[in-house]
Amino acid sequence: MALKNKVQSIVVSGWRKNALLISSSRSINTYATGFDNRILKSPSLVSIDLPDVWNSSSINYSESSTRKFASEQTARVIDGKQIAEEIISKVAIEVTRMKKTIGEVPGLGVILVGDRKDSLTYVRNKIKACEEAGIKFKLTEFSDNCTEDEVCDAIMRFNADPSFHGILVQLPLPQHLNEGKILDVLKLEKDVDGFHAMNMGNLAMRGREPLFIPCTPKGCVELLMRYGVEIMGKKAVVIGRSNIVGLPASLLLQRHHATVTIVTALTPNPEEITREADILISGVGVPNMVRGSWVKPGAVVVDVGTYPIEDSSCCEQGYRLIGDVCYEEASRVASLITPVPGGVGPMTVAMLLCNTLESATRKYNFV
Amino acid sequence: MALKNKVQSIVVSGWRKNALLISSSRSINTYATGFDNRILKSPSLVSIDLPDVWNSSSINYSESSTRKFASEQTARVIDGKQIAEEIISKVAIEVTRMKKTIGEVPGLGVILVGDRKDSLTYVRNKIKACEEAGIKFKLTEFSDNCTEDEVCDAIMRFNADPSFHGILVQLPLPQHLNEGKILDVLKLEKDVDGFHAMNMGNLAMRGREPLFIPCTPKGCVELLMRYGVEIMGKKAVVIGRSNIVGLPASLLLQRHHATVTIVTALTPNPEEITREADILISGVGVPNMVRGSWVKPGAVVVDVGTYPIEDSSCCEQGYRLIGDVCYEEASRVASLITPVPGGVGPMTVAMLLCNTLESATRKYNFV
Repeated sequence: MALKNKVQSIVVSGWRKNALLISSSRSINTYATGFDNRILKSPSLVSIDLPDVWNSSSINYSESSTRKFASEQTARVIDGKQIAEEIISKVAIEVTRMKKTIGEVPGLGVILVGDRKDSLTYVRNKIKACEEAGIKFKLTEFSDNCTEDEVCDAIMRFNADPSFHGILVQLPLPQHLNEGKILDVLKLEKDVDGFHAMNMGNLAMRGREPLFIPCTPKGCVELLMRYGVEIMGKKAVVIGRSNIVGLPASLLLQRHHATVTIVTALTPNPEEITREADILISGVGVPNMVRGSWVKPGAVVVDVGTYPIEDSSCCEQGYRLIGDVCYEEASRVASLITPVPGGVGPMTVAMLLCNTLESATRKYNFV
Repeated sequence: MALKNKVQSIVVSGWRKNALLISSSRSINTYATGFDNRILKSPSLVSIDLPDVWNSSSINYSESSTRKFASEQTARVIDGKQIAEEIISKVAIEVTRMKKTIGEVPGLGVILVGDRKDSLTYVRNKIKACEEAGIKFKLTEFSDNCTEDEVCDAIMRFNADPSFHGILVQLPLPQHLNEGKILDVLKLEKDVDGFHAMNMGNLAMRGREPLFIPCTPKGCVELLMRYGVEIMGKKAVVIGRSNIVGLPASLLLQRHHATVTIVTALTPNPEEITREADILISGVGVPNMVRGSWVKPGAVVVDVGTYPIEDSSCCEQGYRLIGDVCYEEASRVASLITPVPGGVGPMTVAMLLCNTLESATRKYNFV
């Protein structure tokens, strides 16, 4: 398989001479504190960050249709759409109660940079859900070539406005913007996406409670719990280590006492590891990368991947989303599986509303 | 094996009815935000924290001696003591240069609560190392029954004193003190142990750089790099998930592109997972838990565990430290292994000095 070969060639060269690590540790003296690299061999961490380049030769859009092969599958389908609707309706009831009781409603400020089709759809869905739930919503848009300061100023306006209890910066941001710098401007108590380093640290550390759990991993675990999937003591494998999906998902599963392995694009023979998983979560955005042969019989498969493909026939956006998992194959092996669309996606939106309501509840000490 | 049975009995009961998760999620309504548990099934994270109870029936002190079986081992010994001395001497040179150039020296404030024998030894070693390196050192001690406020006040005094560039709270703290609350009082730029949630978040998140990498994991990776052990693409298994060893070690190995699995006390058949590890790091404090049969032939074994046992003959403290790894057995299987003592321990102290120097270097913009 191309992925395997590619990864091994990268890794083997790494194994041979540790070339990459050493060279990068040498090359960053000017970036890292000078002393550190004179005394220690360890490089600065940013200097050894690598892009996760996943192979996508296995893309076969027709295979990824959740409709075409549904009748042949054996796995039970996790209906994220329906559960998300239930949750949103409960949030709506709670928002109404808050309005009646204290005359306030939760408010969510969203910042959107650029015109990525998928980002536009996500933001549209979030607006729609907020309207359903009675949550105040404000969208601030910027063009692709805006400056970091413009975005930070917008965040600070939301930080200062007491009628907004949650702030969300739709990711990914254009390359020229420093995501970390921008996210850390967010007031911690309004970081309903849970991407602030402080929230991530509190998610990771036992005995701590983050103010907000990132929406997508929170939605995944909520689905697992509602379908009676025990997590404690189970082998969970997370494919991908993005700051918004893979990392927080692995941390949250650990807090739930799973034995977690994180597979990256540099993992040789990832399928050998995923095949051991009782719970398999994939969030890399490579259509059909996870084949049936990657799945342990009876495993629970949660597909967080979303990849937009042109399809004028399917909906008004002119494209549809497909996942990381080759649904046709995996649904014949797994015991439970989330479809794309209609699985984790709607739950992410529902969790965003929950976090925004939670933030307002906390602020007003509303019980 | 007792561990296996114990763990399985815990886990199976968890699997059967998910009893623990459900009951805990119900039981914490009063602690967690009330709303959250009405709408969602997901419990608050602190409410599902569990103590990691490791079996220690396999303790056999005689086996753990690094001297007794040295002649029989096949693994190369990682000499942490010697490397730590090299690093400390380089720190000393740098401190002297700083003093000559700008008339300042790095300062480290240490807070010690209670009279745990092992904590006393660690603090004694840190004082000794600071003296060797010319780093200013101040120890503030509290009795076992001191209050949280007393400890926080001491931290705030160090926060405010510009002559201290690093502050360390010797862990573990007595049960009645809230470790998280106390550690978060530390000024981020003086958190040379790297245990502040913000530093942990930045360690976890790609594209971010923590101000300080926790000393023990940093020391482990420094040892691996100095012995030419490539990390990228390798299978690394970390036994234990403590906030001070297991968690940051797993996060740091991920930043170095290992495929990381975290084994906890709730992992059934941990030996089946550790046996797959190219790099095995154990930090749970259970003597000899990691037997030879847990180790993959040719693996690199890093033993972070330290367990003090009475031994009036061995040294002035009247006790000696033994590790998690049954050295006699593992050293016949592994290709590289750290001894206890003389492995990771001295490196932790050396990294503390590096972080303290780094902090002062950063403050004075000293190059």
